[in-house]
Amino acid sequence: MAFSALLSMVLFGSLALVRSDILTPETENTNEPCFPVCDLVREFSALREKVGALETKLKESENQIVELKARESTKVAFSAATGGGNNAIGPYIADTTLVFRKVHTNIGEAYDTGTGFFSAPVAGTYVFMMFHHAGGNQIAGLNLMKNNDLIIQTFDHKSTEDTADNGGNAVILQLQKGDKLCVRLSANTHVWGNDFVTTFSGYLLSQD
Amino acid sequence: MAFSALLSMVLFGSLALVRSDILTPETENTNEPCFPVCDLVREFSALREKVGALETKLKESENQIVELKARESTKVAFSAATGGGNNAIGPYIADTTLVFRKVHTNIGEAYDTGTGFFSAPVAGTYVFMMFHHAGGNQIAGLNLMKNNDLIIQTFDHKSTEDTADNGGNAVILQLQKGDKLCVRLSANTHVWGNDFVTTFSGYLLSQD
Amino acid sequence: MAFSALLSMVLFGSLALVRSDILTPETENTNEPCFPVCDLVREFSALREKVGALETKLKESENQIVELKARESTKVAFSAATGGGNNAIGPYIADTTLVFRKVHTNIGEAYDTGTGFFSAPVAGTYVFMMFHHAGGNQIAGLNLMKNNDLIIQTFDHKSTEDTADNGGNAVILQLQKGDKLCVRLSANTHVWGNDFVTTFSGYLLSQD
Repeated sequence: MAFSALLSMVLFGSLALVRSDILTPETENTNEPCFPVCDLVREFSALREKVGALETKLKESENQIVELKARESTKVAFSAATGGGNNAIGPYIADTTLVFRKVHTNIGEAYDTGTGFFSAPVAGTYVFMMFHHAGGNQIAGLNLMKNNDLIIQTFDHKSTEDTADNGGNAVILQLQKGDKLCVRLSANTHVWGNDFVTTFSGYLLSQD
Repeated sequence: MAFSALLSMVLFGSLALVRSDILTPETENTNEPCFPVCDLVREFSALREKVGALETKLKESENQIVELKARESTKVAFSAATGGGNNAIGPYIADTTLVFRKVHTNIGEAYDTGTGFFSAPVAGTYVFMMFHHAGGNQIAGLNLMKNNDLIIQTFDHKSTEDTADNGGNAVILQLQKGDKLCVRLSANTHVWGNDFVTTFSGYLLSQD
Repeated sequence: MAFSALLSMVLFGSLALVRSDILTPETENTNEPCFPVCDLVREFSALREKVGALETKLKESENQIVELKARESTKVAFSAATGGGNNAIGPYIADTTLVFRKVHTNIGEAYDTGTGFFSAPVAGTYVFMMFHHAGGNQIAGLNLMKNNDLIIQTFDHKSTEDTADNGGNAVILQLQKGDKLCVRLSANTHVWGNDFVTTFSGYLLSQD
């Protein structure tokens, strides 16, 4: 009769709900009768997987952003003049490391204002520039040294008639962390020393 | 009997379902009998929290990407020669700002080709280079000025015998937004003016 | 009586559960009585939309990171001296492309050490610097050429008394991919050739 038919539906439905293990949808037999909850469970499981994949990808992106920001924030740049109160520096009997004491910029503190040495804080590509002004009564000669190697030079002969001259040079170098560079005044040469004319600058162009 | 036992199960189950407030799983007592739906609700709630956390993190990443792109796209670089039709510029009786009218590059329009002044559009580290060619019959002297301060110089003495000379210099400076730089021709000095030899260049190395 | 009232609730509740199509919550009439599962379904649907939006946004972020990394990794820089064993290079009767054979750096292999030509591998803003040392017995003249255009120059007159001089210049240029640059020694001029004094350097400042 109507009452027992309805009751059967109720019983069947509720029991079906009880039987399906909703949190392990993988094991269920899709041929079995299943209430809409089963579909929801399947969808939920798929969404949970999607969220897990998103979490993994986002973590990767975050790591790449950290790396990009680290590169962006690794700044190395120095720029200094000899100072020296408008006097000649040199000549000396031996090659002598020039100390550029009038510092305009020293981002990253890679240039040692006490010794005149630049020490690469990270491996990468660096640009270096040096310029000199010098009186004509002596040879002028600056050597950019990388560790113990001569890299580039400015050089000028004596001239009794032309009482002053200038020189400059630049180089781009791939350095290893810890490589040391300095400007050496060649033995028996001089440059002019004040805050404006004989300078040494360098900066990190790109990190390796 | 069987009928009333089954009926009890049905009633118990349905009422339990009604009783549990499935959208506030935090308050439910896990010791109470609960249908599988309760587990789904718990899992759902956890997943929703995960998605919320993902949204927050992704927003942070998006902001950092916007910042990185802004830095990457902030480009400032200018490069110009005096022009002047192969004539000497100067000497003048007072220091005079050189206007480099033959412009090769002016990305960001930070160099004013009318006045010769560069105005830093953002705070950051900038590289500047200047070079001159000059006849030997006059002193040659260029001063790179930052606001009212002399920063670097190229300088050359007169020479009756050496009829021309060159000079150059470079500096790296940390500038505030709005700092103004220009090249001043020192009083009573001259440089050679054409599109190729006396130049002023600068660019943003990295934004603060 | 109490029994039939309870039974009605059970029947009503279970049938409501059966009737609601839980995976198409959009169509349901919120005024109809609905078991808590309906709320879960609505919430689930909203969460699924959120996850879809997150996926789209994360993909966009990933693409932007790829682009930022590509820009960061596009490195172009070269730096070379003429070489030449401490001899004059030139004078020649015609303008002659200088080949800088002593290579310090050639990141991206954009500088052709066989021909002396730099070819821009990507559109962007580039910095170029050239320096020369030269004996005074001849004119010294270097022309930085972009394709067939003279861009900047170093130049120096002869001097019988000042037996050597230096020159240098720099420029920043916006190049198209494939633009070719070289340093030409002007006809009837010379520079000094060794590994240290006459140099040509360039690098990509920023990609377009």
